[in-house]
Amino acid sequence: MILSALLTSVGINFGLCLIYITLYSILRKQPVNAEVYAPRIVAEGKYDQRSDFNLERLLPSTSWVMRAWHPPEEELLMRAGLDGVVFMRIFIFSLKMFCFAGVVGLCVLLPINYMGSQIFIDFSDFTNKSLESFSISNVNDGSKRLWIHFGAVYAFTAFVCYLLYDEYNYISLKRLAFYSSSEPKPNEFTVLVRGIPKSPTDTLSETVEKFFSEFYPSTYLSHYMVFHTSKIWKLIHEGDKLYKRIAYLKSTKQSSQRFGRVGFFWLCRPKVDLVEYYEKKLDDIEEKTRTQQSLLHGKELPAAFVSFKSRIGAAVVLQIQQGQKPTEWLTERAPEPRDTYWPFFSASFLSRWIGNVVVVIACVVLTILFFIPVLIVQGLTNLNQLETWFPFLTSILNITFVSQVITGYLPSLILKTFLQYVPPVMIILSSIQGYVARSQIEKSACNKVLWFTIWNVFFANALSGSVLYRVNIFLEPKEIPNILAVAVPVQATFFITYVVTSGWTNTSSELLRLMPLIYSYTRRIFSTKSGEEFEVPSLSYSSVIPSILLFGLFGITYFVLSPLILPFLLVYFCQGYIVYRHQLLNVYSPKFETGGEFWPIVHNSTIFSLVLMQLIVVGIFGLKKLPLASSLTIPLPIITLLFNSYCRKRFLPVFKGYPAELMIKKDRRDENAPGKSDFHEKLITAYKDPALQPIQFSRRTDSHNAPLLASES
Amino acid sequence: MILSALLTSVGINFGLCLIYITLYSILRKQPVNAEVYAPRIVAEGKYDQRSDFNLERLLPSTSWVMRAWHPPEEELLMRAGLDGVVFMRIFIFSLKMFCFAGVVGLCVLLPINYMGSQIFIDFSDFTNKSLESFSISNVNDGSKRLWIHFGAVYAFTAFVCYLLYDEYNYISLKRLAFYSSSEPKPNEFTVLVRGIPKSPTDTLSETVEKFFSEFYPSTYLSHYMVFHTSKIWKLIHEGDKLYKRIAYLKSTKQSSQRFGRVGFFWLCRPKVDLVEYYEKKLDDIEEKTRTQQSLLHGKELPAAFVSFKSRIGAAVVLQIQQGQKPTEWLTERAPEPRDTYWPFFSASFLSRWIGNVVVVIACVVLTILFFIPVLIVQGLTNLNQLETWFPFLTSILNITFVSQVITGYLPSLILKTFLQYVPPVMIILSSIQGYVARSQIEKSACNKVLWFTIWNVFFANALSGSVLYRVNIFLEPKEIPNILAVAVPVQATFFITYVVTSGWTNTSSELLRLMPLIYSYTRRIFSTKSGEEFEVPSLSYSSVIPSILLFGLFGITYFVLSPLILPFLLVYFCQGYIVYRHQLLNVYSPKFETGGEFWPIVHNSTIFSLVLMQLIVVGIFGLKKLPLASSLTIPLPIITLLFNSYCRKRFLPVFKGYPAELMIKKDRRDENAPGKSDFHEKLITAYKDPALQPIQFSRRTDSHNAPLLASES
Repeated sequence: MILSALLTSVGINFGLCLIYITLYSILRKQPVNAEVYAPRIVAEGKYDQRSDFNLERLLPSTSWVMRAWHPPEEELLMRAGLDGVVFMRIFIFSLKMFCFAGVVGLCVLLPINYMGSQIFIDFSDFTNKSLESFSISNVNDGSKRLWIHFGAVYAFTAFVCYLLYDEYNYISLKRLAFYSSSEPKPNEFTVLVRGIPKSPTDTLSETVEKFFSEFYPSTYLSHYMVFHTSKIWKLIHEGDKLYKRIAYLKSTKQSSQRFGRVGFFWLCRPKVDLVEYYEKKLDDIEEKTRTQQSLLHGKELPAAFVSFKSRIGAAVVLQIQQGQKPTEWLTERAPEPRDTYWPFFSASFLSRWIGNVVVVIACVVLTILFFIPVLIVQGLTNLNQLETWFPFLTSILNITFVSQVITGYLPSLILKTFLQYVPPVMIILSSIQGYVARSQIEKSACNKVLWFTIWNVFFANALSGSVLYRVNIFLEPKEIPNILAVAVPVQATFFITYVVTSGWTNTSSELLRLMPLIYSYTRRIFSTKSGEEFEVPSLSYSSVIPSILLFGLFGITYFVLSPLILPFLLVYFCQGYIVYRHQLLNVYSPKFETGGEFWPIVHNSTIFSLVLMQLIVVGIFGLKKLPLASSLTIPLPIITLLFNSYCRKRFLPVFKGYPAELMIKKDRRDENAPGKSDFHEKLITAYKDPALQPIQFSRRTDSHNAPLLASES
Repeated sequence: MILSALLTSVGINFGLCLIYITLYSILRKQPVNAEVYAPRIVAEGKYDQRSDFNLERLLPSTSWVMRAWHPPEEELLMRAGLDGVVFMRIFIFSLKMFCFAGVVGLCVLLPINYMGSQIFIDFSDFTNKSLESFSISNVNDGSKRLWIHFGAVYAFTAFVCYLLYDEYNYISLKRLAFYSSSEPKPNEFTVLVRGIPKSPTDTLSETVEKFFSEFYPSTYLSHYMVFHTSKIWKLIHEGDKLYKRIAYLKSTKQSSQRFGRVGFFWLCRPKVDLVEYYEKKLDDIEEKTRTQQSLLHGKELPAAFVSFKSRIGAAVVLQIQQGQKPTEWLTERAPEPRDTYWPFFSASFLSRWIGNVVVVIACVVLTILFFIPVLIVQGLTNLNQLETWFPFLTSILNITFVSQVITGYLPSLILKTFLQYVPPVMIILSSIQGYVARSQIEKSACNKVLWFTIWNVFFANALSGSVLYRVNIFLEPKEIPNILAVAVPVQATFFITYVVTSGWTNTSSELLRLMPLIYSYTRRIFSTKSGEEFEVPSLSYSSVIPSILLFGLFGITYFVLSPLILPFLLVYFCQGYIVYRHQLLNVYSPKFETGGEFWPIVHNSTIFSLVLMQLIVVGIFGLKKLPLASSLTIPLPIITLLFNSYCRKRFLPVFKGYPAELMIKKDRRDENAPGKSDFHEKLITAYKDPALQPIQFSRRTDSHNAPLLASES
């Protein structure tokens, strides 16, 4: 790709970003948009509803940047939870890493690359120059200057490992501090027990009661059986929909809309008062729901939330195998009540197992299907091929701007468009796997999306672009570095445009919140009662974290190969830091609190990127006829993996549970605190399935227990 | 190989077995050999020392077979522990499996193979007939009869899986029953704590005391710090040697031996009374030992045995992460006091980690070195090659008997000889890895030996014999079945001779105990005081179990390919059942009790064998031009692995620990039992390092705490 095509793409996206940000800075000042741009402030009732018009409201401003920048981490922790803080640490970590990489890359490596003469350069026309003259490919074979690259790889690895250690340490301390300072939560005292054995004499509930009061008389508090409530959930959804419809009908001014024909063959039916009709139907549903609820009595599933009087009591049951049969009395960490994903409970062991198999197959199919857009994208970057396929396009493609748009901007746009459907699909797949908490589903989906993106964006593009695309390179481990060394550097410019298209523009559109804005406007036009169905959104970690980590991967792998990508990445991370900090403070409200359990994903992904970079460098030095440097790089991935194994030992256990020391200390503090018995009482009913609560649609305002997908989309 | 060579080998080994068994049945009746053939009965003082001579003592008899056969499993459990019972279950399981395989293989598959005409057969000379006419290679390509083999594979897999499930279930129930019926043991109440953090004010011992009495005041009983005692161990060994020498000198009649010259330049020294001299030296060592012991005060290692008042109390500390730093307060199951491998404690975290790396490298080197005997062995089975290498041998090799011995008997003998050095080496390697118990070392060595043997005996022979030997076949997963299908059937006869040489003869020489017999005779000649250094040996599971499992692998993989191996295996397992039952009842005395933790190794190895067999069959059907059967066999390994994953879930946790239910029940029973406080008192000193006990060489009779290698060899 030539420089001008890159500049076209950068130009388009920079323009888009400017437009988005300007639009945002104007729109956010309009009080009508408060629900879109500051929903959590509105929900907290802190929004200043002055609607007096002045000129300043129409001018773009940058005050929001300062308001996103200023609040200290403590405030972020208070408002966005530890997950929010950890999320922001990804940006801080990446910025630190790429500041170092940027200084080394741009001041040292870039000039060296440029001074090489491996690739023929036409000095007369700078803008048409191939971008490859800035990459390592331009350094002459066997040049002594490559030793500077070698040094840079070692220095960068050391620096990143230091950062990783530091950050892991910081976050694990934060996590422990957060745990010990937080208020008592029901999930700390509760264990989800599955595989309760059937007894010929007792009901399941009695079996649970007997077991725990026999073996843990001093700590056992209560239990709550789980029921198969998917039928009731369906009724509740239906009722919710009807209720919204009635509210809408009641609010419309035109009474003509209030009357209509209903039922089958509705054309032949007489007109009725729809409000009356629906209200009757709603009553029916309420009645049915109550019947269903009463029918459930005695039909428990073999699962229960068992609560204990102390955290250590719950931990004992959680960690030690309970029953003699290892498939009975299985214990699992209980999710927060608000985080519980109720539909899972319908899943038996077998259906969960089948679900897992289905998910594996689905992921494979999805990966194969995703080759189609990747091939299209790679076709576009090679214009000549496109001309051979569609000869009639030749005349259009010869126009410089068109060809620049097609090679520079279009490919990443297509990829970006397809990629945005991946996270929702992965969430659906993860929810099939039978996780008990939304946070677990998010975490699992986050991992899936991450590896899917790395494979389909990085590897598929890198390998297909160089016609070396074949899955079986991973069956010839010795060849991997060489194949990657040939294929990866070629794609540098494509990934730069990807950073610009996907990174920059996505971040600024995140700020503008275009879809919620449109939705809010349409709702306001068709419905008069605003604020009725208002819900504070939450940040979907499973779609955002993988894309940030993918950019991290780009930066790490291309740091040596083609340092030109680094300034674009730095811009992305700076922008992302401000934008997401702002969104976490003003827009999103956390739906769950994992206590920073997303960090290990970031750590693993960075280690993977480092090792990948090192392998590519091994190959590059081989290709550049510097075998000594190539051999001397081989210990580096080994050292990195050893470092990783140390980190796993040193930090990972903190993210899997909490130490006994802290639990016992917290328990003792609670002993003396007032309100202990109040809390125990609350604990008894904390895990009641919301579907089993007495139902009355007109008063249902708590929406956090709606099924996941409904609330995510 | 031709039939006559096989018969030669069988003849030689059958003769050897007969000689061994006859010799045994005569020698065991001589009271002088009691220490060799019934050491545990002698040690228990039950041996009847009548030495009145009669003729019957010189005639071979078979009464010992009945005495090995008769005792019920309960008696075996009492005498050899659960490990012994589980060990015998390997034979019972294998016999069941191969009885089924034998019936199907010999009555159905063998005739079908023989009826084929794929391989040219000279019907005139039966003894010179190639053994391949009995193998699946002889069935005609594309023959419909192969569907019978297909059915046999499915039936055999189903039967083996049923047996595996049944056996796993039986043994896990046995394990739980054994646990709940056993007497209280110190290791049930104790946890090994490592990584005790250093405190600026307290000693390590005080830190432990403070930590556990603060967080577990109700269950904490006591702790015992670990010291670095390798210096003292050395002194004790030296002292032991001297003590033996003195005892020997005192017992000799010739007083000339009591005087000699000692020291450097001993020729120039005057003669002294050696007993006096050594006794003085021994006093010196005793003194030094005491000094060393007193020097240790305050120099604890950051590790301690912490004992609790209840089993569940110990389990809580064991299972829940204790400290905030995951590298501190690491807990580990405590071994039985007699099972503790004291030298490990000198190993820091780092040295253990380095130890692990060294062990991995050593295993690789050992595997590579082992190719040398394997190549020799394979050279011998191909006589023609040998003739080209050493032309001068041609005349000798042309003698029928010599060539039959060389092709039939020698290769397995060489392999067997080299293999017998593997278990001790693996034990040394495992002890470097820093395990805290001899039983753990045995288990780890058992696994190592197993995979080493499978790789070096099965794969190396199978693949090198067919000139297809190359490690990288495992990098082309699709090709594995085909390569194995070509290579494995060819080696059938070699493995039959291996079963005969290694299996039959080893088992009968196990009965004869040739080495201990020779040792006992020489000792009796040179020393008059017999019974002084008498020690009951223990069965080395790490060398015996892998060889039994290897024979299982042969049987399973060749069941379809060449069923002729099955009768030889059945003879082996019958013989092994009687011999090892006899040895466990009369000779060996267990040195530790893992509660049947060796069984998962057997289970995994059998699953591996099954999957390997299925893969080979997939390849065979492909080669035999029956692609449908080949495809229909592919689900079989998948089903087998799923079955295995279910078994892992269903049974494995039982072998990793004990359920809370049982622990609490046992604790409650103890509450009411008398002698509780006695036991607690014993518990406090149970884990005292024997090197720290007050030393007096003349009274040292307990030898179970000597370092592992000394007692193993």
